[in-house]
Parts: sequence; C-alpha cells; structure tokens
Amino acid sequence: MTPLGYLRKTRKQRFDNLLELLRFRSISALSDCSGDSISCAEWLVDHLGQVGFKGRLYRTKGNPIVYAEYITNSNLPTALYYGHYDVQPTEPHDLWVSPPFAPVIRGGYIYGRGTADDKGQVFAQIKGLEAVLKTNGALPINVKFVIEGEEEITPSSLPNFFEDHKDILQADVCVISDTAQFNKSTPAIVVGLRGNASAELIVYGPKRDLHSGAYGGSVANPIHVLSYLIAKMHDRKGRIAIPGFYQHVRPITKKERQQFAKLPFNSRHYATECGVPALEGESGCTTYERLWSRPALDVNGITGGHQGEGPKTIIPSRASAKISIRTVANQEPNDILDKLEKYLKRISPRSVRLELLKLGGAPAVTIPASSPWLEAAHRALRRGFGQEPVLMKEGASIPVVSDVKTILGLDSLLIGFCQNDDNSHSPNERLRVRDFENGCKTAAMLPEELSRIKGIMGRQL
Amino acid sequence: MTPLGYLRKTRKQRFDNLLELLRFRSISALSDCSGDSISCAEWLVDHLGQVGFKGRLYRTKGNPIVYAEYITNSNLPTALYYGHYDVQPTEPHDLWVSPPFAPVIRGGYIYGRGTADDKGQVFAQIKGLEAVLKTNGALPINVKFVIEGEEEITPSSLPNFFEDHKDILQADVCVISDTAQFNKSTPAIVVGLRGNASAELIVYGPKRDLHSGAYGGSVANPIHVLSYLIAKMHDRKGRIAIPGFYQHVRPITKKERQQFAKLPFNSRHYATECGVPALEGESGCTTYERLWSRPALDVNGITGGHQGEGPKTIIPSRASAKISIRTVANQEPNDILDKLEKYLKRISPRSVRLELLKLGGAPAVTIPASSPWLEAAHRALRRGFGQEPVLMKEGASIPVVSDVKTILGLDSLLIGFCQNDDNSHSPNERLRVRDFENGCKTAAMLPEELSRIKGIMGRQL
Repeated sequence: MTPLGYLRKTRKQRFDNLLELLRFRSISALSDCSGDSISCAEWLVDHLGQVGFKGRLYRTKGNPIVYAEYITNSNLPTALYYGHYDVQPTEPHDLWVSPPFAPVIRGGYIYGRGTADDKGQVFAQIKGLEAVLKTNGALPINVKFVIEGEEEITPSSLPNFFEDHKDILQADVCVISDTAQFNKSTPAIVVGLRGNASAELIVYGPKRDLHSGAYGGSVANPIHVLSYLIAKMHDRKGRIAIPGFYQHVRPITKKERQQFAKLPFNSRHYATECGVPALEGESGCTTYERLWSRPALDVNGITGGHQGEGPKTIIPSRASAKISIRTVANQEPNDILDKLEKYLKRISPRSVRLELLKLGGAPAVTIPASSPWLEAAHRALRRGFGQEPVLMKEGASIPVVSDVKTILGLDSLLIGFCQNDDNSHSPNERLRVRDFENGCKTAAMLPEELSRIKGIMGRQL
Repeated sequence: MTPLGYLRKTRKQRFDNLLELLRFRSISALSDCSGDSISCAEWLVDHLGQVGFKGRLYRTKGNPIVYAEYITNSNLPTALYYGHYDVQPTEPHDLWVSPPFAPVIRGGYIYGRGTADDKGQVFAQIKGLEAVLKTNGALPINVKFVIEGEEEITPSSLPNFFEDHKDILQADVCVISDTAQFNKSTPAIVVGLRGNASAELIVYGPKRDLHSGAYGGSVANPIHVLSYLIAKMHDRKGRIAIPGFYQHVRPITKKERQQFAKLPFNSRHYATECGVPALEGESGCTTYERLWSRPALDVNGITGGHQGEGPKTIIPSRASAKISIRTVANQEPNDILDKLEKYLKRISPRSVRLELLKLGGAPAVTIPASSPWLEAAHRALRRGFGQEPVLMKEGASIPVVSDVKTILGLDSLLIGFCQNDDNSHSPNERLRVRDFENGCKTAAMLPEELSRIKGIMGRQL
C-alpha cells in the first residue's frame, strides 16, 4: 500500500483522533487551564508513541514540552518538526456557533479552537509521517518533534528548552506548519515573518472613581488621556509616530515591490472578507507591502471605568490598553518598546501617572531564498496539493522561527495548510477538510523530498 | 420632650433602622436587583406608616415609587419631600473595605452603598419629621413624600408619575437632601445644578476579531478610531471641541466670578483629596467656575478587544465608550447630543462604521435667589448644624429638580447633609455620623421654619 492509500484507508480513525486532540482546553493564557494543557501534552506523547516515535514530556515553568524522535541513520538528513498544542482564549463566547472545545465537522470544515492554529496542522504532519512509516516500514530521514504549549503567550519556555537541549535537538532543517496558504487554491511557503513587541499601557488618574457630575471638568480623565496617547501613536499618513521608530527599517526595494505586485490581490474582496467598509494603512504602500514589509502597531484591548449594563457617571481612577507592535527586519523589540515608553512619557500631561509594562517580543525573520531545503518543501507541496506553491511573506510573528535560527542554527520551512480566513484568533476557528487532507498528503511526501537534499549538499551542512 | 431630646433618646433605634434600609441591594442599573428594589420600597412604606405617614407604592415600568403623606390643614404650607432609594452599582468590588450592602459604623462614619446617595439623607428627613410628630403630636405643615427607585438610571419613571399625579402632588415647595455640604464644617444650600446628556458611542470595524499579525496595518482598528474620536472631543485649551457646543452658554459674569472667588479653595488640598498629581480643566477658569458654571464632557467607561488575563493579538471587531456631558443653563440636552453625533460622523474615517446611542438627559437648573423658602432652609440648617450655611452651586445633575419645576411648578430647597469625599459613586461610600445627626436635627427644625413662610406670603402662592 502507498502512503496515500494508507491515508485513505485510515480516514475515519484519523479524524476521530484529531477531534480527540481538539477537545483539550489547552488555553495557555489562562492559568486555570494548565491541567488541560498537561493532559493534552500527555495525549500527544502517547499518540506519537503509537505512531512509532519515542517521546516524553519536558517540564517547564509553564506548560510541558512534548519531545519525540525517530532516529534511523545518522547519515540521513534530520528534520526538526515544530508545532504547538496551546490555543488562544475563546471569548467572545456568544459568537461561537458550536462550542470551541466540542469540535464538529460541518460543510466541509472542521470547527473548533485550535483546528487551524495549530493542533490541526501539526497533527497533519504526524499523520503524514505515520502513513510513510506504516507502509514503508521506515522513514528516509531522522525526525525530531518539538510541540510546545506556550506559543500563544509571552514569554514561552521554549527558548530556554532550546538552550538547555541543543545536543538532542541537532538537525539540518526545521519544518513548521503554522502559517496560511496564499489562497484557497494555492499553497505557499512563507519566507519572511514580521516580529513583534508587546506592552500594556496603564494611565492612573484619581485615587478612586469620582462622580463625573461633582468633579467633571476639574481633573484629568484617564480614559481621555489614554485615548489621546493612542491617537498620537499614528500620524495622519498612517505611519507610526514614535520618534526613531523607523530608524532601522530598510525601505521597500524596487524588486520587492515588483514581486509583491505580481501576486493577485483584490482589495474589494479583501475588505469584504474582513468585513470593513474600506481598507486603511500607511499611505504610499500596497496592502501586501503594509502586511509583509512595513511595521504595524495595534491596540488589542482597551478597558477603563464602567463596563457593565446601564450608565454610571464616573471619572474612572484608571484606564489601560494592551498594545502589540509588528516589527520588520532590523528592528529590535526592546529598543522599540523603550522608544514607545520615552515618547508616551514625553507627551502625557502631568495630571495623570503613566506606566508601560514592557513584555518583550521576537525579531522579524527572513528565510534565505538560496536555501536548498526550500526546493524540497516546494516539491512536497506541489505533490500534496496538486498545485504550484508560491513564495510569500506573512504579517504575523512566529517567535520560534527566530529562536530556531538563533539558538539551533536552523532555517525553517514554513509550510502551512490553513487559510487566512480560518478565524485562527477569533470565534468559529476552523480548518477546511480538504486542506487538512492535502496537508497530510504533503507531510507524507516531505520525508522523501528532504532525503534527496542531503545527498546533493553533502555532510558539511 | 423636645424634638432634639427625642432624637437623642431614640438614637440606637434610629441607627438600627438606617442600617436595615442600607442592606437592600437596590441597584437600579442592574435588572436582577429589581426584587431587592421592591423590598426596599415596601420597607419604606411600612416605616413611614409607623412614623405617621399614610403611604403606598405606585407601580412603574421599572422600580416602584414610594408615596406617603401627612395632611393636617390645607391652610398650612405643603412641602413635597423628595428622595431616592436606588443606588449606584458597586464595582470594583475588591476595593470595598467592608461589603457594600453590609453597612457598618466605624471611625465616626457609616459605610455602605447608599449611605450618602441617597438613603442616608432621605432617612434623616424622615427621622427629623418623626421627632416633631412624636413630641408635638402634629406637624406645623403638610408633608408629601416621593421616594423613587430610578434616580441613578436614564430614563426614570418619575416624570411620567409627576405628569399623571399632579393633583395629589400639589405643594408649595420641594425639599431635597441629595447634595453635599460646602465642606466638613459648613452646610450649604445649592442654588444651581448642571444638567446632563448621555450617550454611548460604538465603533464597528472588522466583522470579526482579526489576527493582528496577519492583518495589522491593513485595516482600521476600532480602538484606534474610538481613541481618536475621544481625543478630538476636547481642544488644547480644555474646551469641548464639538462645533456649536457653547452656542447657548452664557459667559461667566463678573459678579459670579467675584462670588465664587470669595469661597475658600485650596487647590493642593483638592488635588490630594482626588488623588491626582495636578488639576486640569478649561483654561482661564477657576475650579469652582469649571464645576459650577462651565460644561464638561467625560467618558465614563471604555471597552474593546481583549479584556482578560494575558495577551491576545487581535484587531477587535468593535470598541465602545459611555459618555456623559454636564450642561449649563440654556443648553438643551438633545440639541447637544445631535451636535455631538454630527461632529463624530464628520471626523470619523470611512474605514469604520459609527453608532451613537443618544440617551437623553436633563437641563441645568437655577433656584432664584429671591425665593422666600430659601430663608427658611437657611435658618433650619443654621439651627441643625450650629453653623452659618453658604449658597453654592453643584456640578452634578439632579434631574428631578428640573422635573419638579417644569411639571409641578415648584422650586426646590437643596439641603444636603453629606460631603463631596463621601464616595457617593465609588467604593467605600460613607456618611459621617455627625452629618447624619445634624441632618436629622435640621429636618426637625425645617417644618417650623417653613410654616412661618406661608404666613408671610399669604394664600396666593
């Protein structure tokens, strides 16, 4: 039987296993989900064991890391497969059509938290490798799995784990399926990722909530000041107004402009997909340029004063905002956060007190177009999807890609199977059944393609 | 026995009764407290009955209205006593030293939600009248009580009740204890109140929360737009920037300026009491002018995106703010809200959708300095507190004062017993025991003082 035949034959079991994995409430941002995260990690070790990988859990200060390996021959290439089993929080709960942790298949999609980001994708890799192992009796490469439980929070324990276990993690290349395809009919390899830097801004006003009738007009309102500070984070051209912010950003090259311009883009379709009346962003840039080559700053949440039903006439004692900045090549996250803090403290009025909690981040990453492993990934995708893949960039950060490069010295092959509209951080997260199936097929082709490269490149890699 | 002797003798019982009244969770903004509100209203009817008032509940669409009367002689003056038994919400709950509905007396203060605003104050009026009734056997005036349960929400059922029962509510003057004293040693009569107008502003962005990495920089963030709109509500001089907002505001007169300047004010003390590093407000105005004669706009609450623990990298689908505007004489609340809406729609970018829920309001009120009833209130306060009261204005609105004037044709005597720092809309609301006691004494003096006026003015009033 071929690997593809095996995938067909075991279809029902494969989906049953996937739904099992999706049922764990492994939300890393919520401390009361840590028990569910441990159960999820244990399930993965057990499942990888059944497939043919020798695995164990590594404890961390947070959620445990799943490690599993299949070592056949040290002369063969070694691929480090990375994924994460933790998921985003699920509010607003009332917008989910079916509960986030009761996964269901309907209308050609698997719905549930983690289907796209990232349980469904890493599971496709596992099942593709299983298909090769169970039909050929062996893999043509060595494989090491690292599946972490803290990808959605900062800081993750993963960099420390990498530092502490460089020996067992030696490999030739890293394989990651945690990105989206270019569109519904075109798979993609992502060769560039923006970095990120996070912070929380708190504005302290009166020591207690004040009656807005009795005090209104005589003291600063922290919500007004916070709003002013947020409004001052961008200029009128949609550029980020923090002094020195663009100091290390290199301008978009003519070649890059041309390359992006070749990719199909329909701004009306994009606006409809996002559900916005019109697009917006840095003037003088196309949407791909804004997303892939230019930094962005977004307030992810804001809170202050009365949140509940009905009115409450107060001047609140504080207001706060969660901020994330998407950086591009050469911007250093801590430097950017220092500049933000300096700017905010300079422009804030004296009538309030300000605090910026700087939460760090990860730098942007570029995969060199000259990497021979890109060619292997390209062929595997073409065989798995029956479509020619495109090289693209991605606006989101995957901190592990820079850690894998910096600590382990490996380039990453970013071959994701989901779609951008799969609601990866929103209610009704989903993964198309066809994308999952093509992902499994690609994963079944990849070992063979990777095994060819080593021969071409020799042992010096 | 004199009324004052009676108050001394019944002290323990009086405080026990007050604590009973404070225990009802009569939060009008929360629909699930309506049962507690009904119980509170029933308790008041029962208690007024024991004192000597014939009372009943009037049903409304919301919380019932307590009505009770003591009619002795139609040749005597009739005073309509107004108060409210509903209270503000209690969050943030973790800042309360003792639970809001488990009132306690400590350090010379009664602590609990509603102590100052307004249960404690209206109860002082009831107990003062009781002292006269129980010692003299009769009151020298006719008294009608109206105690509503919807003062803290908009709209209240009270104006409809006034319209429907003008006949039974006929009176000569209205007595209201729902304001603060000038300071800890000086009682006050409030002769002017700002009005108010409320609205909720909602900014709609993407149809769902978007991943801020994948989409950041390409679509408008509703939190950014909301912040921009809030920042644009004031100009750099602290004035409200809505076009036409000051159209009907009369400038502060020289006489008013001089009058306010005579009242003691220590800005450092005021800033410390509020717990702010510095005061702020419209430039060119003193704090009293800002509070009493100039309008103000405050955002009372703001919400959008991720509120919980940890990060969540999204561009939220909406953000909203609760807004209250304090108006001054001649500003019409609905006109002001229309101007706000027009302005916001004009300056908002096309990349989001905007909604302003206009919640109405109440106009500002002035009590004519020529009213003979002011003199009666003045004397009662002097006798009750042993201090000369001052005439002042108040920044907060009391919508009933304008309703009483417009619908029933009555001027109000605003003689409040609490202090501005009694946390009336904040955690740890309180009422000084001495202020409550002086309030009871004042209330025991007031009937006699009011009874003298009728004689002076004759029957034509």
